[in-house]
Amino acid sequence: MESVIEQMHRFFNPKSVAVVGASRKITKAGHVIFKNFADSKRRGILRGELYPVNPHEEFILAFKCYPSITEIIGEVDLVIIVVPAKVVPQIMREAAAKGVKAAVIISAGFSEIGNHELEKEVTTIAKEAGIRVLGPNCLGVYDSHTGVDMLFLPETKVLITGDEVVATPRPMKGHMAVVTQSGAFGASALDYLAGRQLGVSKFVSFGNKCDIDESEMLRYLLHDEKTRVILMYTESIEAGREFMKVAREITKKKPIVALKVGKTGAGARAALSHTGAIAGSDSIYNAVFKQVGVVRAKDMEEFFDAGKALSLQLPAAGNNVAVVTDAGGPAIMAVDECESKGINVKKFSEETAQKFEDLKREGTIPSFATNLNPLDLTGSATSEMFEHGVKIVLDDPEVHGVIVIGLHHVPALQEDFVDKIANLSKGYTKPVVACDIGETEMALYTRSRFEKLGIPAYPSPEDAARAMTALVSYGLYLKKSDSFEQYLETFQKRTRT
Amino acid sequence: MESVIEQMHRFFNPKSVAVVGASRKITKAGHVIFKNFADSKRRGILRGELYPVNPHEEFILAFKCYPSITEIIGEVDLVIIVVPAKVVPQIMREAAAKGVKAAVIISAGFSEIGNHELEKEVTTIAKEAGIRVLGPNCLGVYDSHTGVDMLFLPETKVLITGDEVVATPRPMKGHMAVVTQSGAFGASALDYLAGRQLGVSKFVSFGNKCDIDESEMLRYLLHDEKTRVILMYTESIEAGREFMKVAREITKKKPIVALKVGKTGAGARAALSHTGAIAGSDSIYNAVFKQVGVVRAKDMEEFFDAGKALSLQLPAAGNNVAVVTDAGGPAIMAVDECESKGINVKKFSEETAQKFEDLKREGTIPSFATNLNPLDLTGSATSEMFEHGVKIVLDDPEVHGVIVIGLHHVPALQEDFVDKIANLSKGYTKPVVACDIGETEMALYTRSRFEKLGIPAYPSPEDAARAMTALVSYGLYLKKSDSFEQYLETFQKRTRT
Repeated sequence: MESVIEQMHRFFNPKSVAVVGASRKITKAGHVIFKNFADSKRRGILRGELYPVNPHEEFILAFKCYPSITEIIGEVDLVIIVVPAKVVPQIMREAAAKGVKAAVIISAGFSEIGNHELEKEVTTIAKEAGIRVLGPNCLGVYDSHTGVDMLFLPETKVLITGDEVVATPRPMKGHMAVVTQSGAFGASALDYLAGRQLGVSKFVSFGNKCDIDESEMLRYLLHDEKTRVILMYTESIEAGREFMKVAREITKKKPIVALKVGKTGAGARAALSHTGAIAGSDSIYNAVFKQVGVVRAKDMEEFFDAGKALSLQLPAAGNNVAVVTDAGGPAIMAVDECESKGINVKKFSEETAQKFEDLKREGTIPSFATNLNPLDLTGSATSEMFEHGVKIVLDDPEVHGVIVIGLHHVPALQEDFVDKIANLSKGYTKPVVACDIGETEMALYTRSRFEKLGIPAYPSPEDAARAMTALVSYGLYLKKSDSFEQYLETFQKRTRT
Repeated sequence: MESVIEQMHRFFNPKSVAVVGASRKITKAGHVIFKNFADSKRRGILRGELYPVNPHEEFILAFKCYPSITEIIGEVDLVIIVVPAKVVPQIMREAAAKGVKAAVIISAGFSEIGNHELEKEVTTIAKEAGIRVLGPNCLGVYDSHTGVDMLFLPETKVLITGDEVVATPRPMKGHMAVVTQSGAFGASALDYLAGRQLGVSKFVSFGNKCDIDESEMLRYLLHDEKTRVILMYTESIEAGREFMKVAREITKKKPIVALKVGKTGAGARAALSHTGAIAGSDSIYNAVFKQVGVVRAKDMEEFFDAGKALSLQLPAAGNNVAVVTDAGGPAIMAVDECESKGINVKKFSEETAQKFEDLKREGTIPSFATNLNPLDLTGSATSEMFEHGVKIVLDDPEVHGVIVIGLHHVPALQEDFVDKIANLSKGYTKPVVACDIGETEMALYTRSRFEKLGIPAYPSPEDAARAMTALVSYGLYLKKSDSFEQYLETFQKRTRT
């Protein structure tokens, strides 16, 4: 018998795909989806066969069109269904007759609007025929590696003026998997990640989860070598025990960042009317996530920020953090955020303080630099001062992670401080995150250069502190569950290759 | 005798300026500052006379240079001092001899590094001569209207490659005043605001505040017609009683948003070593801000976001908010954030719900739209649906503000929904804030178009909710202090002109 992993693999890497409801009308979801696949096929990325299914057409985008799945001659590995909800049971029966084993139901109009019977009918057909189902009411899958792209939201949109603009871009290849219950949030996530030059390995919008739920998805991603970090948006987790089991297994090897919404009374009511999900007690979710090592993000920004940090940096082996800065005020902001999240920014040891005093005596850093933690190099900071300062704190055995606040505005600081810090940090197994504030040319350059060199960079001190919090809390969990050393080894092996 | 307002006016609109420490060396702060003024003068923005003071030069940028302030023939209204700290007392004595009444001491090296004696010496000279002093250890003033620009951080910076890039831009003219104790944070704020196309009226970095403190600055800004919202970064407020008095007076007419750092133990320690400030108990600051109607931001992003909201929109007359969306998940995120901040997103009244049901029956909005609050128009949303939906909630007397989450990704939504909502909202005195998620072309366009039309727009649902929180808390304060009606009147008068 096939394993769940093999079953799931079809959704991401099908040998052949039929799009039921494929259309020639460019405004139709069935057109956009089929075109995505046709494009992937033409570019040679999609390896499997591709079949449009539509009884009213002979050809779509030069592909021979079939009136029904059952008329297709070759085998059909995966069916994507984009027809009105009431027709879906009929299509599922045809899929069953054809021996299909995997179906994605993009169509909405099921339990999310109270049509529980219709959804049940579909589920029953699927169960009996052994078809695994993703959806209904979802965006399906986008895989940056295999060319699978079921998003019915086209990459560009035409404005009233006739101008065509980027609307729902697909991010580049990367190591973050995005798993989402909300399709709308999923589309936004792609737009956010693409715009911030953050790559994804796989994207799955699973909607009503009439069959496949987050736990099976997560288990598949555990085995996916392309995925290093899992970002999960959810409104409700029904199979709690199974989720805990899977999550516990995964988080020893890969971080999971969760954005669980419906936290408040009114939020839960909104979730109920959105997907019919019972959001459940928020404190239980907190306890569960904590117990199984899932990093919970408090909002959208923290969700992406934590994912970026965990995909680029090692977690921290403890909760003492050092701040190195050229800007006193912003450093205080980072310290406040760390401390209010339970991370210590404690005074440096006498030994470390002595090293700073030595640097002052030599004239390497300014005599008026303050060095209790933060180390404040002041507005006189240079690249060399940052290099010396960061080295000393990385050498300090009591420091588990470093936040570098390098505001580019100070006159003597050259942009090569980024490269110096990045190179330096390679010699250590401690996480480093950076912050530069500003939304114009040099700030954008500084942050992007940091990230190119593997150091996550943030536009505010508090964002950087929150990212460090994610690295600390995941690190502490790994320590507690005796998995830190192994994670470290895997992480380093990857970096070397 | 001169009023404090008249005294303060000199710093922003001097009849004549002397820059002591002006230099021909382009790497020197004294060069950058003098060049800023020379440029303003050439462009005809700076109206007063301009004198470089430096005993070693004859001309700087074609301006005749003076060996000392006392040698200047005309009157000197304002002196800007950019010389090493130890020379400052001597310069102050010369300024006193010349009869100068206002001085900005840019130079660092005073109480912030423990040189209390030196600072006291300067203060004593100033007191005796009746010179008002801004600083020391500050960036001074940038006024977008008068051409006064004391920032020694040049707008561009030259990279190692030789490329020149924007580094510390000056924002355009606008209605937000920025008042900051930290110069580094001030420079970042300018970079942030310029990059986000947000304008400022005045910028003041007051550093060690040996004489002029935040309270006097605030009082001046109360009378400044160009300033509608005051953004204040502070590490400590020493003259608490005076601050409360001034703030109470101002907040009846103009909102103040405060970013008070040094909240935690380690943060307070960092503040102490940064500016020598005793941060004080955070709960006292909370209580004080609340009592005098100051909106306190929890972090940098909220600081700017709240400022933007308050400068563009009226505050809310109560704390019931409606959410109108095309994206169920992101709407839940906004609801969660509102409710956790004490803002109600309660179910719509029967009357309002009935109006939605009527729209459904007519086929104006989808039959499966949910309308408990949020009103979720679903992925089928169009511009017209948003217009109808927003109108109904604005008409609801129980709704005090509206959060519009209009994700541009949904297929049938055209960008003119922005204009429709903006036009519609003009007929009401209720605040509207918007959210679109994404960092690529259409998301950037949507948010920027919203703001062009006066509706603050945010890149995450929680950001939008937090901005609404600022509008609600300020509105409730105005109500409580019987100033809402008058504020409303002033606000509307401005909008009409």
